[in-house]
Amino acid sequence: MSDAAPAETPATLAHPILTDDYATEWMGLEVLALGDGSATVATTLRREMLNGFGIAHGGMIFAIADSAFALACNPHTPDEDQAGTITVAAGVDVNFLAPAHVGERITAVAARRAQAGRSGLYDVQVFASPDADGSGRLIAEFRGRSRTIPQH
Amino acid sequence: MSDAAPAETPATLAHPILTDDYATEWMGLEVLALGDGSATVATTLRREMLNGFGIAHGGMIFAIADSAFALACNPHTPDEDQAGTITVAAGVDVNFLAPAHVGERITAVAARRAQAGRSGLYDVQVFASPDADGSGRLIAEFRGRSRTIPQH
Amino acid sequence: MSDAAPAETPATLAHPILTDDYATEWMGLEVLALGDGSATVATTLRREMLNGFGIAHGGMIFAIADSAFALACNPHTPDEDQAGTITVAAGVDVNFLAPAHVGERITAVAARRAQAGRSGLYDVQVFASPDADGSGRLIAEFRGRSRTIPQH
Amino acid sequence: MSDAAPAETPATLAHPILTDDYATEWMGLEVLALGDGSATVATTLRREMLNGFGIAHGGMIFAIADSAFALACNPHTPDEDQAGTITVAAGVDVNFLAPAHVGERITAVAARRAQAGRSGLYDVQVFASPDADGSGRLIAEFRGRSRTIPQH
Repeated sequence: MSDAAPAETPATLAHPILTDDYATEWMGLEVLALGDGSATVATTLRREMLNGFGIAHGGMIFAIADSAFALACNPHTPDEDQAGTITVAAGVDVNFLAPAHVGERITAVAARRAQAGRSGLYDVQVFASPDADGSGRLIAEFRGRSRTIPQH
Repeated sequence: MSDAAPAETPATLAHPILTDDYATEWMGLEVLALGDGSATVATTLRREMLNGFGIAHGGMIFAIADSAFALACNPHTPDEDQAGTITVAAGVDVNFLAPAHVGERITAVAARRAQAGRSGLYDVQVFASPDADGSGRLIAEFRGRSRTIPQH
Repeated sequence: MSDAAPAETPATLAHPILTDDYATEWMGLEVLALGDGSATVATTLRREMLNGFGIAHGGMIFAIADSAFALACNPHTPDEDQAGTITVAAGVDVNFLAPAHVGERITAVAARRAQAGRSGLYDVQVFASPDADGSGRLIAEFRGRSRTIPQH
Repeated sequence: MSDAAPAETPATLAHPILTDDYATEWMGLEVLALGDGSATVATTLRREMLNGFGIAHGGMIFAIADSAFALACNPHTPDEDQAGTITVAAGVDVNFLAPAHVGERITAVAARRAQAGRSGLYDVQVFASPDADGSGRLIAEFRGRSRTIPQH
């Protein structure tokens, strides 16, 4: 999916906010790409991510997208302009378009769409694919509203 | 259902869609109330639900609310009118208002707000409280859009 | 609908932000009630507010709700705490539930739902009624996100 | 269609849903482009479109975007597949990014982003420019949810 993810070993990339991010760790997210205002993550849908209809729980699809969003809106390399701040999700509008199934590869691609002062707008597209290499079908569109605030 | 739900105190309620809902089970959700178009669930925020800022991962707060939403929009007792259908989330607008911390009690209260044909609108308020009994402070407002579809 | 709107003459109430609000004037909005974080407005649906399907244009229903939102989130009496600031719409999630027809009375009821620092969350319910007195049927649910900013 | 659209320069395009669309006519919208799932419209911001802060009323910016949305999600040439149906807005999430001023040229560009059965997702970007030719600055991001229903 990107230069950062060679076919032989999809080594996950480092990002400062991943230290002690236990939720992202629990989801088994691999960070495949990081850019200025962008991030791509992927994982495999496990049984604990299913709802009672036998498909992916909306909250788990949201959580995968939300991690991609956080990686995209916080700098992955030291950034003078943002020293002493963190960027968090103020809100999200998400549309669920199709179900996803256990064992499928879920990929979330986040990109900045707009920025106005300390408020940002990010789109995250979530795809599901039966095999690890396919880009897959679009299953959710997530639009995140970010807010940059002082770090306590 | 989980370590967080001791057998003696508030017994979780039964709902047909909870069978094999592994995500809800993983979250340790207790079902505290069920009504026509309403549901209340609660759990305790665990370490695997935290992000890298040391607060609740937005995706986990969303997932708790999303389970309350699903319980509210699917009948908990047999309903002739809805036989052969399931009601799923078509989309959600969520606003995150305040952070939540490990060990806190998270409660999500879902209620139907409007219904037009097979489309519904549900509000879920999420609260966090340092102790098990407090109703707590409002940390998120979740507005879910439901869609009733044939069950395959 | 309220003490502020006597049956014999629904005199519109005064609010500082209505001076030179030409859009609200064009819509013919009457301000029926104003409170701390709340407002009720009404108008009659005119031909210029219809779309090509012969029903109310979504943008016009939105505009009526948006004026109620603005009246609710800006103080209608001098407020020391908010001197030198204005509160504007950062964004809105709106759901259209039913159509409205020419000549119907449209009423929008706005109320603050949450406030966190300079960000607020307001719900506006929009009703349509064939006669002037009826509260009518719910036609739209509008959730506005406000932001208080310095006045230039 | 309006004073703002002189006869010699860009002639507005025809679309079946514009017949008797009095709101679009009142806004003076010119239809600059139409495609499969896309539309571009423009107008000039008039005094009746301003709020009490002396900037464009959010409802008017929304209404311009909403017309572009309607033009994009209904076929502009006869379409066998959609005979006997119309496509309407079920809901919208809109973010207001910057103000717009009287006399500015407002352009709304709508494009289909996803389609799942009778539900669609459309993005509309709204731009403002001091002169008629500039593409201008981004002032709003509008994400519309469409629903195709039988025409009565």
